[in-house]
Amino acid sequence: MEEVDKGVSERITVRRMPERARYERNGINAILDEGLLAHVGMVTPHGPVVIPMLYARDGGVLYLHGSAASRLLREGRGVQLCVTVSIVDGLVVARSLAHHSMNYRSVVVMGEASPIEDLDEKSRALDILSEHVIPGRVEATRPHQEKEVKGTLVLSMSIDEASAKVRTGPPIDEEEDYLLDTWAGVIPLGIDVGEPIADPRLVSGISTPEHITEWQR
Amino acid sequence: MEEVDKGVSERITVRRMPERARYERNGINAILDEGLLAHVGMVTPHGPVVIPMLYARDGGVLYLHGSAASRLLREGRGVQLCVTVSIVDGLVVARSLAHHSMNYRSVVVMGEASPIEDLDEKSRALDILSEHVIPGRVEATRPHQEKEVKGTLVLSMSIDEASAKVRTGPPIDEEEDYLLDTWAGVIPLGIDVGEPIADPRLVSGISTPEHITEWQR
Repeated sequence: MEEVDKGVSERITVRRMPERARYERNGINAILDEGLLAHVGMVTPHGPVVIPMLYARDGGVLYLHGSAASRLLREGRGVQLCVTVSIVDGLVVARSLAHHSMNYRSVVVMGEASPIEDLDEKSRALDILSEHVIPGRVEATRPHQEKEVKGTLVLSMSIDEASAKVRTGPPIDEEEDYLLDTWAGVIPLGIDVGEPIADPRLVSGISTPEHITEWQR
Repeated sequence: MEEVDKGVSERITVRRMPERARYERNGINAILDEGLLAHVGMVTPHGPVVIPMLYARDGGVLYLHGSAASRLLREGRGVQLCVTVSIVDGLVVARSLAHHSMNYRSVVVMGEASPIEDLDEKSRALDILSEHVIPGRVEATRPHQEKEVKGTLVLSMSIDEASAKVRTGPPIDEEEDYLLDTWAGVIPLGIDVGEPIADPRLVSGISTPEHITEWQR
């Protein structure tokens, strides 16, 4: 069993399949660092809303690129969010439909997020968001213009309240079903990276840089 | 411009980047049918919660496999949910960091979900959920046992209130940045399918069936 941080709050505690839960920080960080997209939930007057957003981790802080949710998030500081990042590693194929599953790694972070106001801090957070998606991209591009930083919403929230859930390995079937001549196992899934497609308006003579050709996850 | 259904509610209307919005049903259905995982948001006494869940579409109805959220969903019929399905198609690499983006297709469905009580209906919904993930799997496995159907929570919700958001194509840069000698374009992303891994306890002599070896998305 893994070590459980003393500070696990009630609302973040995994109830369903608690044997898949992880609370230690390194495991949570590794999943956050590998994921590409977060699904961010918030409560609105119209009910719950879930929006896919870019994110990045900076130590114990999570940055969220707010453009997709500006309307909902720009007003006021301090909005309660639930940020969920899921990575699908495979389809678990069992002998009965009931035991089909997925191998996955997911993290849930709950807490209050606030817009970053300071322009230098926001500029740095934007760099970290870029580097999370494409390492090496900041060095390859021109510096931010002030109007670009001003016009972008970046939210910051602490990763204090977080839990991970992980499933790995083969299916777990009913004992009597192991005698069936039904195929069972795992179909591994990952991210397929295609050949980079140059912008039709690219200045001629520019070769594709290594941080693009070598991109993987 | 695409035709907009007359029934687009206010809360489902896309405000940010409305030119990326799609409301016609065929486009929404195609995204729902291709996605693997939904991120389901709900409002709890502890704030918003977002949980990854299996789902499937059956005509104008969405089924959600509730095991991951039993605690939150089992009580009472009729819970307001926001179901978001996102497919990442590529990384959009621009000449300035501010114009980096993703090519994606996402759908948001809002509405009230209720558990399916009738066992025959639930059994059929479980088959549809299985077929959504692995077409051909229902025929390859033994029938459900009644206790398995009883022990599973399946939620049903209408796809009446739904919108899609789609981004495709190359980056859109600031006009003056097109002169820069910075590489720009798209890194296409998809799902990489690995070689199926047989369960170590598989009865000997069983070959991998076609619906497994041919699985793709």
